[in-house]
Amino acid sequence: MSIVVVGTVAFDTVETPWGRVEKILGGSANYFSMAAQFFCPVKMVGVIGEDFPESHLEYLNSKNICTDGIVRLDGKTFHWKGEYKRDLNEAITLNTHLNVLEQFDPQLPEHYRETQFVFLANFDPRLQKQVLGQVKKTKVVACDTMNFWIEGKPEALRETLKDVDILLLNEGEARLLSGKASLLRAAKEISDMGPHKIVIKRGEHGAMLYNEGNIFVVPAYPLETIHDPTGAGDTFAGGFMGYLAKSLDPLNDTTLRKAMVYGTVMASFTVEDFSFNRLKEIDWAHIEGRYTDLLKVIHF
Amino acid sequence: MSIVVVGTVAFDTVETPWGRVEKILGGSANYFSMAAQFFCPVKMVGVIGEDFPESHLEYLNSKNICTDGIVRLDGKTFHWKGEYKRDLNEAITLNTHLNVLEQFDPQLPEHYRETQFVFLANFDPRLQKQVLGQVKKTKVVACDTMNFWIEGKPEALRETLKDVDILLLNEGEARLLSGKASLLRAAKEISDMGPHKIVIKRGEHGAMLYNEGNIFVVPAYPLETIHDPTGAGDTFAGGFMGYLAKSLDPLNDTTLRKAMVYGTVMASFTVEDFSFNRLKEIDWAHIEGRYTDLLKVIHF
Repeated sequence: MSIVVVGTVAFDTVETPWGRVEKILGGSANYFSMAAQFFCPVKMVGVIGEDFPESHLEYLNSKNICTDGIVRLDGKTFHWKGEYKRDLNEAITLNTHLNVLEQFDPQLPEHYRETQFVFLANFDPRLQKQVLGQVKKTKVVACDTMNFWIEGKPEALRETLKDVDILLLNEGEARLLSGKASLLRAAKEISDMGPHKIVIKRGEHGAMLYNEGNIFVVPAYPLETIHDPTGAGDTFAGGFMGYLAKSLDPLNDTTLRKAMVYGTVMASFTVEDFSFNRLKEIDWAHIEGRYTDLLKVIHF
Repeated sequence: MSIVVVGTVAFDTVETPWGRVEKILGGSANYFSMAAQFFCPVKMVGVIGEDFPESHLEYLNSKNICTDGIVRLDGKTFHWKGEYKRDLNEAITLNTHLNVLEQFDPQLPEHYRETQFVFLANFDPRLQKQVLGQVKKTKVVACDTMNFWIEGKPEALRETLKDVDILLLNEGEARLLSGKASLLRAAKEISDMGPHKIVIKRGEHGAMLYNEGNIFVVPAYPLETIHDPTGAGDTFAGGFMGYLAKSLDPLNDTTLRKAMVYGTVMASFTVEDFSFNRLKEIDWAHIEGRYTDLLKVIHF
């Protein structure tokens, strides 16, 4: 099965305690796809400007990632500038140049519309809903969001959530959306808004799955060195959805738990270097190796 | 097997977002014992003042907790005043009245000295070492410490750690003691100081065991309501050591992993109410129930 992902394709300028990089490749759809392609074919939807390198699109195509849904517009590519201080769980946005993203009007190419797995990365919930109107019949719709939309477009977000199976969001966002301090209560509350499965991402503390009353918690993969947390959440989603898309029974509780472990593994590679550098170096054996390692960390 | 615990017996005045309580029963040795007694007999060592209620000692005795090692001195009992704000992982000390604790000179009664399991709660590392000099031959020595000693008496702490099998400490303390930001690196570094097993407590994010290169991570028990985190760490240690003391092979990796789960379960009860209130209500069936629940949260 293939996955349609709709999200940003971006340049990032990032500063972490371990260095600063200027205008490197990033964006939610990019990170998601680079992780998910290890599991299944991916179909991207996004927008880029004249300055975006054709070579990266060619690289994506070489990895079974279809870029027919990426539109190139006059102007510059979306550019995010951010930094991480000692608390690597919190990205501090220094500057956002939306550029061509302001004209983002996601249109799925005809051959994308039969896809059974859809991931709506974090963007305007009104557009997220518009995308769902273009797919014919889906098995799994997963979605991400952030404080900006929870506070800025709460009604539109509520509308979108009604059609979502799995919502992925971080700890603070879960508390903001639900108004509950306890993550357990927050997940229950969000579950009533539509998505019956909630994945709460907790950065270096791992992630929690709430699946209709069943809870699964997976710790982050223990690493000695973290270089840049940018993209960790989107590559988590890529590994998570990638595993679901290649499963026979994607919404089964055990399948979802294994998907949480694969998501964690994919994120662990991303944070070891800037941009997709580490994801470009690894192969399936690396992924399986860390999957097995992580099971040893949680089981006995 | 029984356990000797050396630590504080105290009054606590605590303020949390859910209320304020004045001069309730607390102290590390008290919390530890109240948890460990569900698993095995406990022998306490500590100091109290004239104002400490005899009725609590009688309660402890009724629970298979020996108080022969508790000395009553002229003066007042140690009194800690603290508060927790929104971040329940961080206790803010408002005031510490050491009172009789200033004269603490731990002496083990003769019938304590053959005990095979020793827990040195957080106190002066010089005195911790003095206690170890009084036990004849031990199977397991576990120890807790804190920033105050890591920064204030680093040499004495290093001396004590040489004779310790298991060090329990929190995230920030592990980083301070090791000088390493990564918890994995911190654990390796501390391991070289003596204790081959390190338990890093992470509050609401659970706990990590580092056992000679093997890592095990257990999440906190998912709770809807937390009233007061005071004593969580010491009751974790009580459940952890209690399980080891009743095991045939206490330093085996699987035993230690199960002990981590029992420690987590005991802490989950403590935080549901002030002082030992919740611990006084539960029985073994409650403990086994949460143990089974927690396995469902981590396994598949």
